[in-house]
Amino acid sequence: MSDFERLEKQLEFIREIDKEKSIKRQNYLTDCETHENDAEHAWHMAIMVLLLKEYSNTDIDVLRTISMLLIHDLVEVYAGDTYAYDEEGKKTQAEREAKAADKLYSLLPEDQEDYLKSLWLEFEEQKTSEAKFARTMDCFQPLILNDATNGRAWKEHDVRKSWVMKRNQNTHLGSETIWEYAREKLIEKNVKNGNIIDDAEE
Amino acid sequence: MSDFERLEKQLEFIREIDKEKSIKRQNYLTDCETHENDAEHAWHMAIMVLLLKEYSNTDIDVLRTISMLLIHDLVEVYAGDTYAYDEEGKKTQAEREAKAADKLYSLLPEDQEDYLKSLWLEFEEQKTSEAKFARTMDCFQPLILNDATNGRAWKEHDVRKSWVMKRNQNTHLGSETIWEYAREKLIEKNVKNGNIIDDAEE
Repeated sequence: MSDFERLEKQLEFIREIDKEKSIKRQNYLTDCETHENDAEHAWHMAIMVLLLKEYSNTDIDVLRTISMLLIHDLVEVYAGDTYAYDEEGKKTQAEREAKAADKLYSLLPEDQEDYLKSLWLEFEEQKTSEAKFARTMDCFQPLILNDATNGRAWKEHDVRKSWVMKRNQNTHLGSETIWEYAREKLIEKNVKNGNIIDDAEE
Repeated sequence: MSDFERLEKQLEFIREIDKEKSIKRQNYLTDCETHENDAEHAWHMAIMVLLLKEYSNTDIDVLRTISMLLIHDLVEVYAGDTYAYDEEGKKTQAEREAKAADKLYSLLPEDQEDYLKSLWLEFEEQKTSEAKFARTMDCFQPLILNDATNGRAWKEHDVRKSWVMKRNQNTHLGSETIWEYAREKLIEKNVKNGNIIDDAEE
């Protein structure tokens, strides 16, 4: 009988990350009723990279960018989702996620533990073109869903324009075109129709 | 103002495929309670390719394989999911899915319509190494989930061993190692413990 020791470790990890499908985000799906989960979010962005890579400011390694997006939220299996506008949660986010990464990735054979951890860190550090474009997708995708659901999650959380602009301060680093579109067609539109609160007027 | 005509078409498609997150499969997640959906299934398999590509019988283009898996079930947005063991549904599946592909992919700019359609057809035709390994993942992933949930979906549908073996008749074409593992450690185990009905004895 073959020795499946390496495959068994890989499968333990594969079973464990199934939990990402139960990590709910604040966003709603376009059905306007169901909260999106992390796995769905990652899948959606991976396809977005395939279709929107032409708008990247610089050439990117598409496989690396997609791989980064597929795995970048896995730490939330242990650390939970931190909402983009949860200022308290964000204070402890980095520490919680680093601990989660150690625990989760150690399930894998060492070479793959190192590889996936380095991909996750590359996303977190935001230095490479791939990480920047991945981050642009990570900010753009929830804007699309929020806009498509008449701002339901924005309205539930009384989201201010300044929060959205701060959250998106680096969206242009991955793609000037996508940022131009997002600002004009998604953010400004939803400020005008009242889905995002215009706090310049407060 | 820029002309966003091409981007608008891409975004119409990106919004439309959000519906894949609501296409339920018969399988349960490892929580043993929630039916998996198509987007979660695709996400899971894309990560599996990153981790298990070493077991492919032949060298594969990883990006192409992942892209194929990310999009291979999109037709179900219009055609619905056809359960692996639904013999009636399978009679009309090819026709329903071809119509769905025409409708869905025509939302995209023509070059991307052609590209995604050709990827989908490559998966359906099962001629390339990438398509074969993708198919191996598509059969292996539900075996993992069924095994991890004590065969809940198998038991609900009185699944027979002969059905599982037929469904997996080409799993070895993508990876002999994964098929060997699946047969010994997942299928035979679940026949022995009664989660899959041993119809050799019927």
